[in-house]
Amino acid sequence: MGGVRISELARRADVPVGTVKYYLREGLLPAGTLTSATQAQYDEDHLRRLELIRVLTNVGGLSIASMRDVLAAIDHQPRSRHDLLGTAHTAIGPHPTVSPAALDRATQLLRRWNWPDAEPAPALAQLAAALEGIEAAGITLPDAVLDRYAELMHQVAEVDVGMVPIELPADAIRFVVTGTVLFEPLLLALRKLGHWQASARRFGPDVEDDAE
Amino acid sequence: MGGVRISELARRADVPVGTVKYYLREGLLPAGTLTSATQAQYDEDHLRRLELIRVLTNVGGLSIASMRDVLAAIDHQPRSRHDLLGTAHTAIGPHPTVSPAALDRATQLLRRWNWPDAEPAPALAQLAAALEGIEAAGITLPDAVLDRYAELMHQVAEVDVGMVPIELPADAIRFVVTGTVLFEPLLLALRKLGHWQASARRFGPDVEDDAE
Repeated sequence: MGGVRISELARRADVPVGTVKYYLREGLLPAGTLTSATQAQYDEDHLRRLELIRVLTNVGGLSIASMRDVLAAIDHQPRSRHDLLGTAHTAIGPHPTVSPAALDRATQLLRRWNWPDAEPAPALAQLAAALEGIEAAGITLPDAVLDRYAELMHQVAEVDVGMVPIELPADAIRFVVTGTVLFEPLLLALRKLGHWQASARRFGPDVEDDAE
Repeated sequence: MGGVRISELARRADVPVGTVKYYLREGLLPAGTLTSATQAQYDEDHLRRLELIRVLTNVGGLSIASMRDVLAAIDHQPRSRHDLLGTAHTAIGPHPTVSPAALDRATQLLRRWNWPDAEPAPALAQLAAALEGIEAAGITLPDAVLDRYAELMHQVAEVDVGMVPIELPADAIRFVVTGTVLFEPLLLALRKLGHWQASARRFGPDVEDDAE
């Protein structure tokens, strides 16, 4: 794609022109090349960036503030692919505030699972907050259930990490950030669909009166 | 707990009085029993409902509109425990708009996995939207990876469903709705922590220069 005007850029990315201008003002999209006092041109890099923003907003449901962090993580390559995860997780959030006791409990769990390489924040805080919330709802989670969830999600993570392209660092970064965000709705949808299968097996599909 | 005033109710649930009044105005919390023209009393049911709202808001991140649907699902018991899932999933959302082609692709996948009992909406729409988003981000998901995700999330769902209390229908409904929402952050946190393990195994924890 050669240099195009903002209207054409917007059309190709399927984003309203007003929204493109908003992203430019917010600095999410770099400025175009000025061709006159009032006109700028945009290139292939702008289009790719705009498409990425669209996907992260629509599917990932990211706010403008989170988007800024995620794009910064993509723009500033960390020192190693392992560091990349920390940058991506920090950018993506959430960053819940949790009590020291809850954090301590989460740390104990990691130790039990022999997960020594886990970065303390923010995924650990997210785990602590989730456990607190479940407890606050009056639900008791047996250790065996927690262990099983950890085992299964670790296997999911193995599949995720196995897909990261290792040839081009820029692609790896983009993949980790978008993959972490975009695969979440996929996995949650699969879990819900799995509930139907599991529920049919446990309760039967045709039981109409057992909740009376 | 005997009848208490709104200030005491708010204190016990750890929710600001202004927020309790807001929930009353919005109809999320049923009105108290009037003891004079300007005073009402609240009981144990109000407290439990208020605690549930607090957890669903803070941990589940539900909007007031979603909360209304979720509470309605809890209040109106469906005909069977299997129906319960449809009610809960519909209440919880999301309800993305997807193309017929995307829906068709998602349906084909369910057929491939031999998941005949899956309710078409909204979990199917969520799956279709997630796949569309991943594709739009330029990520190609091999069939083998999708199959593996489905297998693992099905196993997660089996654990979920196995925990549903079957003695009291009211408890079962509450569990399915809160569990679907509250376990999501838990599972996603475990996946992120699992990334650290998987990443250390694939790339090593000490590689500093491989992203240069």
